[in-house]
Formats: sequence, C-alpha cells, structure tokens
Amino acid sequence: MIPDEGLRVAVIGGGAGGMATASRIKRLKPEWVVDVFERTNYVSHAPCGIPFYLSGLVESIDDLCAYDVNYFRERRGVNVHVNSEVIEIRDGELDVYEKGERKTYEWDRLVFATGSRGKGLDIGCESLEGVVCLGNIDEAPAVKETAGRYDRIVVVGSGYIGVEIADALSREKKITVIEQGNHPLPSYDPEIAEVLMRFMSRKVNLRINEHVVEIEGKDRVEKVITDRGEYEADLVIVAVGVMPNVELAREFGIKTGKTGAIKVNEFLETSREGVYAVGDCAETRNIITGKPDWIPLAAPANKMGYVAGSNIAGNEMVFPGALRCQLTSFYDMEIGKAGLSEREALKAGFDAVSVTITSRSRASYIPGGGNITVKMVADSESRRVLGIQAIGAGVAKRIYASAALLYKEACVEDFFFTDFPFYPPKSPVWDPLVISARNMFRKLDIS
Amino acid sequence: MIPDEGLRVAVIGGGAGGMATASRIKRLKPEWVVDVFERTNYVSHAPCGIPFYLSGLVESIDDLCAYDVNYFRERRGVNVHVNSEVIEIRDGELDVYEKGERKTYEWDRLVFATGSRGKGLDIGCESLEGVVCLGNIDEAPAVKETAGRYDRIVVVGSGYIGVEIADALSREKKITVIEQGNHPLPSYDPEIAEVLMRFMSRKVNLRINEHVVEIEGKDRVEKVITDRGEYEADLVIVAVGVMPNVELAREFGIKTGKTGAIKVNEFLETSREGVYAVGDCAETRNIITGKPDWIPLAAPANKMGYVAGSNIAGNEMVFPGALRCQLTSFYDMEIGKAGLSEREALKAGFDAVSVTITSRSRASYIPGGGNITVKMVADSESRRVLGIQAIGAGVAKRIYASAALLYKEACVEDFFFTDFPFYPPKSPVWDPLVISARNMFRKLDIS
Repeated sequence: MIPDEGLRVAVIGGGAGGMATASRIKRLKPEWVVDVFERTNYVSHAPCGIPFYLSGLVESIDDLCAYDVNYFRERRGVNVHVNSEVIEIRDGELDVYEKGERKTYEWDRLVFATGSRGKGLDIGCESLEGVVCLGNIDEAPAVKETAGRYDRIVVVGSGYIGVEIADALSREKKITVIEQGNHPLPSYDPEIAEVLMRFMSRKVNLRINEHVVEIEGKDRVEKVITDRGEYEADLVIVAVGVMPNVELAREFGIKTGKTGAIKVNEFLETSREGVYAVGDCAETRNIITGKPDWIPLAAPANKMGYVAGSNIAGNEMVFPGALRCQLTSFYDMEIGKAGLSEREALKAGFDAVSVTITSRSRASYIPGGGNITVKMVADSESRRVLGIQAIGAGVAKRIYASAALLYKEACVEDFFFTDFPFYPPKSPVWDPLVISARNMFRKLDIS
Repeated sequence: MIPDEGLRVAVIGGGAGGMATASRIKRLKPEWVVDVFERTNYVSHAPCGIPFYLSGLVESIDDLCAYDVNYFRERRGVNVHVNSEVIEIRDGELDVYEKGERKTYEWDRLVFATGSRGKGLDIGCESLEGVVCLGNIDEAPAVKETAGRYDRIVVVGSGYIGVEIADALSREKKITVIEQGNHPLPSYDPEIAEVLMRFMSRKVNLRINEHVVEIEGKDRVEKVITDRGEYEADLVIVAVGVMPNVELAREFGIKTGKTGAIKVNEFLETSREGVYAVGDCAETRNIITGKPDWIPLAAPANKMGYVAGSNIAGNEMVFPGALRCQLTSFYDMEIGKAGLSEREALKAGFDAVSVTITSRSRASYIPGGGNITVKMVADSESRRVLGIQAIGAGVAKRIYASAALLYKEACVEDFFFTDFPFYPPKSPVWDPLVISARNMFRKLDIS
C-alpha cells in the first residue's frame, strides 16, 4: 500500500486525454501535485479542429484549444509545462527539456498521453518545403499561410482528415485528392463511400487507385508523381493516416500491443504498475469485437482521461471501450459511421450480412428535405447489429442513436422498436434506421 | 384452430395504425381480403402535419398523407373504403354508412384503429362559428382559410400542437396563447419549459395560469373570457389535448383500461379473441414504468400496426411499448423529450433525482453554435435513467440517442460511456448528454 498523501503524478502530453486525466486527479485529490509536460505551446487541443481553421471558419489557432494553459493552472491547479519535451524516464523521475533547459521531476504515478502523429509517405520527400503532414496543431498556421499564397494544392489520402481538408480548401482553390484505394473514406463500404465519391468528384480532382511514387521539386515542391500521372503542386498535404507516439514508452519498457499502441488493462494501466496510458497513444477495447483495438479519437481520449484519473486517485472505474464512432461532412453532405463496416465485420470473423436503403430524412411533405442512405451490418446468427454507416441529410441523429444502440449491444429488433420521435421537419414517421431494421428482418427471415 | 385461407379482416380507421396493419397483413397473406373503413376522405394521415399546412410550408392537405388511397388499393391490394363510417359491429359482421348508403361487411378478424380526437373545453362553445378543435385533418382547410381572413387568433392550450400552431401562425398574425398551467408544454419540467416560455413570450401574447371560462359571440366568435382577462378573437383554436375514440369498441363489448383507451395484451389483441386495437385508440406499455399507458403518437401507431398485422397473419410478434418520445420546435428553438419528466417519475413512484445543465451544442470554436439545456432524470437507487428533456440547438440527435438508451433500459454510466462522435460543427468533445451523466455521477456519488 503506497501512501496516497502528497503523491506526485506526471502526465506526458497535454492533449485531450492528458488534460482530462490531470483535471480528474486534481478534482479528486486537490492536495496532489500533477505535472503535465506538453511539447508544443498548446494544451487541450485536438487536431480535428484544424480543417475549420484552414477554411477560415475558425480565425485563430488558439480558439481550437478547449481551454488555455492559464485555465488549467489557475482554475484546476495543474502544473502545466508547455514547450517541454520529456527525454528520459527512470523509475520515479523523468528528465525534460523545458524551454531549452534540462530539468528533472519526480513522479509516483506516470501517465502516457503522448498522442499520435501523421504517417509519412515513406518516399523520402517529407523534408521538401511545401510538403506537410498535418497532424500537429503547431504546423497549421504555416500551412494556412502557404495555402493562401499558392493555387495548386494536392491532398494525399482521403480519410476523414483528407476529406475535411479538401472541403475546407476547395471552396477557393483547385484541389487534387489522391487516394490509393478505390473510393474516398477507406473505412467505409462502397455503398456509402461511392455516394460521396460521385459528389466529391464535382468539387475536386479526385484520383482513386493511384499511388504516389515521388514528390519532386528544387527549392520547394513542384509536382507529385503517381503510378498513373503527374500533378503540379505548390503545396502537398499528406493525410494518409496516423500512428501512435509510443517511442518514449517503449524506451521505458512499457509493452505495446498488436495494434502498435500501448497495451492497457480495463483500468487503463500499462504493463508497469502505477503507469497509465490514455488517448491516441493507447489501445482500447473495441465494443463490437470485444478485442483490443486502436481508436485514436478525441471523444474516447477524454473519457479515458476521466477513467485513468479516477483510477489513479483511487476511485476504481472500468473503461468499457469505444465504437470508432465518427461524423464528418463534405459541403452539405453529412457522413457518419458507428461500429464496423461489412468488410471490417467479415475480417473480424462475424457472419455478417447487410442491407442498404435510401429514404427521406424527414417527412416527405416538408419541402427541401434530402435523402439519406443507410447501410446496416448485422451478424446473421445472433442478429446483433455490428455497424451503421450513413450519408446524406440528417446523418448526425442516426449516428448518435446507433452509437447508443451499439454500445448497448443491440440487435436488429431493437433498431426496429426504439421509439424514435416523429417530427415532420426533422424525421419521417418510419425512420431510416427503422426501415433498415425492417429490411434486415426480411433478410434474416425474422417475422 | 381457425383455417387461415381466405380470411377476411376489417380495419376500422385508415390513419397510420390502420393502414400499417392492413399493409402488413396483405404482405404476409396476399390472398386474404382486407377492408379498411375510413370516415374521412383521407388515409395514412397524421394530424402532426397540420401545423405545417397552416404555416404554408406544406401547400396542399393531400400532401400530408404519406400515401394516397390508390396506392393502397393498387399497390398493396387493400380494399380502402373512404367516407365510410362504421355504425354497428356484430360478431362476424359490421354495418357501414358508405357514401350515404348502409352496407354490411363480414369479418373474421377485426382491428380498431379509430384514433383520437381533440378534447373540447366543456363550456358549451364548440358549436360557435370560429371555434375549432384541430384534431381532424378534414377541418384543416377551413381553419387555414379563416386564419388567413382574420387577425385576432387565440390558441387555447400549449401542448405540442398548441406550440406548433402558435409558431405557424405568429409569423404573420397577432396570436394569444392561453395556458392553464404555469408554463407551456405541460408534460415538461419547469427547467426546460421556462426556457421556451421566455422566448415564446417575445413572439406571442402568452397567458399562463389562466382558465377559459367562456367564449362569446353572436353570429361567430368575438371574445374569449378567462378567469383573469378578456381577449378579442376572430378565430379560437382549442388544443387542450386529445382523447381516444373508443365508443364503437365499448359498444361491441371491448374493454378499455384505466387510461380510457382500449386495453390490449403484448400482441395487441383486445379483450375479445381475434379483435385487435392499434394506434391512438389503444393502450400500450410505457417502457420506463413497465405499466399500461396511453401514448397517442404516429411513430408507435405505425409499429403497432406492423405488429398487430404480423400477429393477425400468424407471425407472432410482441410489441414492447413506447417511450412517448417527441420533438418539436418554436422558431429556431428545438425542444424534445424521451421518457419521463421528473414530475412524472415521482408520480410513477420512482425515487427520482435530476440534473440540469446548459452547454454548447457543438465545439465552442465553431461560430454561430447555440446552447442546449438538458435535464436528466434518474432513479437514485437503480441509477437507471428515466427521462431526458432538452431545449435549444442540436436537440434532435440527443433525443434520438436518449430514445435508444432508454429503450435499452440504460443507466447513468451508459449515458456517460456511449461513444458519441465528436465532430466540431455538430457536437462538442464532451457531449451534453455525457456532461449530464457526469453531473449525475456526482449527485449519486458514483466514482
């Protein structure tokens, strides 16, 4: 039993997960000392806001941070160290470069909240001026400035971030998007992604099934060369996915899992007692498969921080996992997903079946309402719903409801019988989720 | 065992519930004869659309019907009899006034789908010209015409329909709304309803705590007299609630429940074998209390039709009940509820506690996003969430998610851990439902 008076907690990383952990500990144990070491000058940030800064919707990069450093220092009593990079960890202490000086801090409990970073293209072009990997909030101002100055912009990758950047910049610029898969949003099934693809092709030069093989330029980037063509470019934004920042943890002997992220138990404790990991650097449980997964998203990161903070402070709490639930949009088209795609479900070993429907998002007599296309994936044996994907109008409320039902391990009948409200300007009397379930009844020969 | 070849089913009432029943039977048993007797000239209608017809958003009353008579006759093979009033039911047959003629039809299975009607004020004024009870779709054109011609309009009652009519007509007219309770939307708790009240008072002359005692006029209505004032009026719309149409069923010896609506079992069969009831005329199970309740709403009515139709056709199916889930709006303010208010929960015997929070509906850095106020009601012993009410911006998705979680009998922890998507233009990283749950943790001393 370690005495819990005056314990000292070190949190490495001041993003969503790290600050949530620190705040939670200070709420439960105001007398403890909590140090947060953040490499950049920003805390409580999430890269999800970057596209809205690039589009001009959000004016200042500081606005993207939910709270500023002073809020955490003064209102929550957290010792926030910005521009502070942890360089070595030993039992009970760690070394930091803090504003250029090397310092040593002690710790009784340690939290890795080191986040993730954008993957590169592995073709040795990242150092060329005008080629950026948009994972870090502190690079965003320079990208915005460059995007404003030049005209020919190439986005490599069309996951969420790629799609959102294309949306943000294509209003005023000619954008080329290069995707190596056969549709944008690789985590979606074709029935949904192809609806986006048709619309997206009208707004950007969308190149699918193309691999970038080289990025050329003398002083700065000049062109992107793929296996099928060449594209002149003044700015190349690489958005081909992210990877967890686990190097520091590994050096300290912390185990990583199959996903490459830090392995944690249900209390978010790592392979070393008293050492926790939260947010993008850590694994979590996928609620649908029940297996370890890596789900680097801000909403679960915050809740992981809450749970790890509770556990560190002695209030035992289990983190149940996440659904990889997401929403995005491209112009007026909303897109969302909760749980698994059919491809992911089959890969995870489910006997997956699916239905795809298109219906009105609200009462047919209300003018202006658009369509929504919904794909439901279910396990044919247990009838459990494994995932919902949707695109069109009114997607957010269906993904919210799907997140709730999937979290509760709902079956097809639950999707049919959930008493969704009918309100003509917002929803039709037979909700698209209910219609999907009804069609799944037929497919599964229920009733 | 009754032979099921060539059975004849009579459905009394062609609203949402009746047409859903008839359609379901014909899908499962195309060879059966299904007669639907509808008093008006419209089928598949729901009065929920009337406010949007009055506001001019929906141009024609015909548009309010999801499908027209010919669709059901030709595409679904249902014998639809419009302008047909059932006047007497005997074992195996019934008499109908069909377009002025008395006719007799046989039945092997009978379905009551007789709906509900607007309650009157019980002050003997309903026959005065210019005083209308807006429950029936066929009265709507005359009301719209009158509203267009006159200026002084009084709406009595401020439930959903009263609020929606006030919204529809107050854009161009001076509207007085008279409510006998101490806030609009009597089924809501004050923390939510008073937010609406403050806003509504700017758009209409809202009179609370006033009882209508008399409505005066010579040839037509001239003024409404309450216990606290007098209001000149050219048109009075009475929207003080609805009551189930059960007279015909009672005459045939069918039992009604404590709520006054027709008693049914989980298969939606009434007290007589082979006789079913669906929609607004029937009771259902309240999913929160587990007890019989009367929930006259279009979405459950349709599902009741689906279930009763399945059972009549021999595919056994249980109707699990409803949540009285609703959405509405007044100008830009969305309002919604799923499950019980605190008052309703206490009345139902729960040891109810509540939290009310106000937060941003989306990421704070996205300009223009509004606030949402959420009230969560939970049972302090079981931690089960009993109801969610919300008002402001982004209400629909939270009510959708709440409907899903309440349907699955979720507890406070489930509201906290459901993996709602974070998407800055639509939702903040800590969703208002999650914040509500977190505050409820403190109240219930969890973690």
